[in-house]
Amino acid sequence: MDDRPRFRLSIRCPDQHGIVARIANAIANTDGWITEAAQHTDAEAGWFFMRWVFSLPVDAEPALRERLDELARDLGMDWWLAGADTRPRVVLMVSREPHCLSDLLARWSNGELPMEIPAILSNHRDLAPLADCYGIPFEHIPVPREDREAAFATLQARLAELAPDAIVLARYMQILPPTLCDEYPERILNIHHSFLPSFVGARPYHQAFARGVKLIGATCHYVTEDLDAGPIIEQDVTRIRHDDGVQDLIRKGRDVERWVLARGLRYHLEGRVLTHGNKTIVFN
Amino acid sequence: MDDRPRFRLSIRCPDQHGIVARIANAIANTDGWITEAAQHTDAEAGWFFMRWVFSLPVDAEPALRERLDELARDLGMDWWLAGADTRPRVVLMVSREPHCLSDLLARWSNGELPMEIPAILSNHRDLAPLADCYGIPFEHIPVPREDREAAFATLQARLAELAPDAIVLARYMQILPPTLCDEYPERILNIHHSFLPSFVGARPYHQAFARGVKLIGATCHYVTEDLDAGPIIEQDVTRIRHDDGVQDLIRKGRDVERWVLARGLRYHLEGRVLTHGNKTIVFN
Amino acid sequence: MDDRPRFRLSIRCPDQHGIVARIANAIANTDGWITEAAQHTDAEAGWFFMRWVFSLPVDAEPALRERLDELARDLGMDWWLAGADTRPRVVLMVSREPHCLSDLLARWSNGELPMEIPAILSNHRDLAPLADCYGIPFEHIPVPREDREAAFATLQARLAELAPDAIVLARYMQILPPTLCDEYPERILNIHHSFLPSFVGARPYHQAFARGVKLIGATCHYVTEDLDAGPIIEQDVTRIRHDDGVQDLIRKGRDVERWVLARGLRYHLEGRVLTHGNKTIVFN
Amino acid sequence: MDDRPRFRLSIRCPDQHGIVARIANAIANTDGWITEAAQHTDAEAGWFFMRWVFSLPVDAEPALRERLDELARDLGMDWWLAGADTRPRVVLMVSREPHCLSDLLARWSNGELPMEIPAILSNHRDLAPLADCYGIPFEHIPVPREDREAAFATLQARLAELAPDAIVLARYMQILPPTLCDEYPERILNIHHSFLPSFVGARPYHQAFARGVKLIGATCHYVTEDLDAGPIIEQDVTRIRHDDGVQDLIRKGRDVERWVLARGLRYHLEGRVLTHGNKTIVFN
Repeated sequence: MDDRPRFRLSIRCPDQHGIVARIANAIANTDGWITEAAQHTDAEAGWFFMRWVFSLPVDAEPALRERLDELARDLGMDWWLAGADTRPRVVLMVSREPHCLSDLLARWSNGELPMEIPAILSNHRDLAPLADCYGIPFEHIPVPREDREAAFATLQARLAELAPDAIVLARYMQILPPTLCDEYPERILNIHHSFLPSFVGARPYHQAFARGVKLIGATCHYVTEDLDAGPIIEQDVTRIRHDDGVQDLIRKGRDVERWVLARGLRYHLEGRVLTHGNKTIVFN
Repeated sequence: MDDRPRFRLSIRCPDQHGIVARIANAIANTDGWITEAAQHTDAEAGWFFMRWVFSLPVDAEPALRERLDELARDLGMDWWLAGADTRPRVVLMVSREPHCLSDLLARWSNGELPMEIPAILSNHRDLAPLADCYGIPFEHIPVPREDREAAFATLQARLAELAPDAIVLARYMQILPPTLCDEYPERILNIHHSFLPSFVGARPYHQAFARGVKLIGATCHYVTEDLDAGPIIEQDVTRIRHDDGVQDLIRKGRDVERWVLARGLRYHLEGRVLTHGNKTIVFN
Repeated sequence: MDDRPRFRLSIRCPDQHGIVARIANAIANTDGWITEAAQHTDAEAGWFFMRWVFSLPVDAEPALRERLDELARDLGMDWWLAGADTRPRVVLMVSREPHCLSDLLARWSNGELPMEIPAILSNHRDLAPLADCYGIPFEHIPVPREDREAAFATLQARLAELAPDAIVLARYMQILPPTLCDEYPERILNIHHSFLPSFVGARPYHQAFARGVKLIGATCHYVTEDLDAGPIIEQDVTRIRHDDGVQDLIRKGRDVERWVLARGLRYHLEGRVLTHGNKTIVFN
Repeated sequence: MDDRPRFRLSIRCPDQHGIVARIANAIANTDGWITEAAQHTDAEAGWFFMRWVFSLPVDAEPALRERLDELARDLGMDWWLAGADTRPRVVLMVSREPHCLSDLLARWSNGELPMEIPAILSNHRDLAPLADCYGIPFEHIPVPREDREAAFATLQARLAELAPDAIVLARYMQILPPTLCDEYPERILNIHHSFLPSFVGARPYHQAFARGVKLIGATCHYVTEDLDAGPIIEQDVTRIRHDDGVQDLIRKGRDVERWVLARGLRYHLEGRVLTHGNKTIVFN
């Protein structure tokens, strides 16, 4: 319908009169054409959130950016403008379990996940062949128990070289040090294999089995220093029965982990996630 | 946050440049404050749909309506403006099965369904006591097989007196005549006890049992002359097992019918449903 | 197919060789005809659980009971035999919120819940009219904050008179004293409005909102002295969005509470629930 | 708990008195130990279905088989006894879309799908690299439009050599000839990308989009001569929205296809599926 370059704009600001009109005018005055729009007012917090997708004439981006800068000053607004077809650089980090990695690679290869994958990093060598299948560089950075600090320094240095837009812990079974969490705020996604806030920490399926819950779940969240407590992007559950043992929970849980991580990552890649405090707004 | 009267505006028009800006300006210029906004562009059909909720200063509504009339001419746009707390008049029609009626009345009484119920009409007397419990007038309009035409004339006349904004067929087990369907386009909601387009017509649970499906469903749709073929507002399903007989399907199906009808009706009452051809846009 | 009286038998015993054959022979030798059978072996715990439904010739029940007593001694087995059409006496306890009560009464009246309801007890008068609609005696037993002990003594005495097979806390917003919990082990069902073990205690929807979860749930469990920690019978969840405020969570949660309580209660009434430690086996 | 060989037994026979006792005795007399048991009586049809898992002493299988042969004559019973750890030979057939194949291979490699895969057959070469990744032989058997008959003769001959226990059409976009369907009754599984019986035939997602349904689904069924009408093994659905275009339906549908095919295949491999007429009993 429209062959011009497409952009997506996200904004976040204190709620106030006339925001929509001012943004809409900025876009209309740049001859933009809006094709998707979602917004949210958090009435309690008094904040406004928005994600719009629109096309612009070639070369109109700088003028729009200028106008958005002015509006940002007036409205006290954070804003992010990106090409709608941007493919962020995403580093995947894994340990030994292949199910999340193989799912992400299959979706990436299908075109479902708009990203570049400069590298897959792992503290084990097990998943190197899977990376090879999809032609992605695999790097082994061991994390020996007795020398975690040095290992994480190496890892952090290597990440800095890779310059990722996002990092995905696709069942990377190590707790990242605070310094690494802080370097990539709201850019590290983790999949936790429980329906948080239930069963924080280690072996959540064993915890779920012991408690006798009737559903198990998984949670995709941004990583913060506070373990398993970062802003939740996506969650889902699946039903279990009394005849499911721990191994069945692990098997059924793998499916939930896959869906939840894939959906959460897609929302992130498409710029659908905004945060406010420890909560997310997900325009999906 | 804002004690002024709140309105909701829905529009539908061919997609074109600058719609959002023009509507947003119309609202901003009337000193409106937008609190909810959802829109949809059907790129294939080239149509634009929108639902916004905003507050206005007291007495500002006429000016906005004038401005919207102008825009409607320019943009070829249909529009509906209503107070956000409007409670439409809804006539409920039932036969003998209480499950949908009792659910709707419980939700209405809870405040979940913003409507007035001037009357419950039925071709049987069975549900009169349930209507009494909630203090709603119950009227018996029999539909004898040999004289359906006269019965429906009586019914239609009575409906005209009741002047409903919407009519809900809450398991009203009669096919309405075309003349009645035509009088209330997109204002008669039916709950069909199958996941349409599967199992159109009579005894869908028996059809589902015979086919051996693993899920059964229900569909809330606008009634048109074409039986079970109107625009779908909401659908859902529930899982069945090989040991569920037809009676179990009927029992499990009652739950799905309740959820689906209640959700579909709420979307309708809150002005969240727009149609385009035989499809709905549901801003939920 | 078979007009003879139908029974259901549940057993629980340490797992050992030949249990099924011995029970099956006991039933075959009494000329029983099995129509439903479900069993479960907890391999880790080494326990066996079973629920069978069968018909017997008139007057054959005593002989079967005798045989089961012998088997119980041999196998170290607990067993429960009941007419398959038994309708347990169930006292419903409520506070002010009608949604669970109206749902249970509608299902009871539909025939979905095979029980007698000798009385509805409440610490408030609000739901008396709803009880009246369905012709169930309503009794007001206030629980003043300053004299809870005496109030619960009155309540416990009244329950003793009512001699219930089960008690359902259908949003009864009081914590029962241990002495009452102990009198009805595995016979008091509660609906907790969260997906336990998340959000134990007061105001779970507010807790869920604050944490920013993407699904909310409800849990039906047996009441024990340990608040919200008894054996879980049933759970379910529903999806929420960033634009759902606490009031929306409460509204959406009401639906989940209804399903979960109705399903959990039905399993209990039909003798489908066995416990082992703090977990349940649910033959559904 | 028990290191002896484990077996699973499925039976199907007209319902009659004492079946369970007779089978249980046959197993007990062979010193068998039952660990899983599920049965179903279709009261309407008067048929009985059963699946038991048990351990036997080494070398006890022939005696049990003899006893089962006798019972089969008495009861008019079909029966299947197999080692519980049997890994059937399964040929996968695909066209160009990788999503089902990559999912099945990942699950197979994980140990979730107990099968051997002697070959992947395809009418295209596209998925050869994926087969290579997992070390499975890939064979290209083209099906040119002008010479389908010869192509299918080649295919059928090759299948005969491969001697599969089951064949999975993992998005094999060709209609198999009746002669091939007949050779493998209840042994060819297909994944159809709609919630059957809706949207039979070609391009079901386009049909679903045109009809405006609110959920899309997938169906795993045994292939019969009658296209998309064989016994249904498993189905599921996922929610779609008005802003999902046909491409979104295809994307979301891929997930449902994957779950449904993987679950249906697992049930088949574990001997959990019995048929009766055009319906399945699935002991899951």
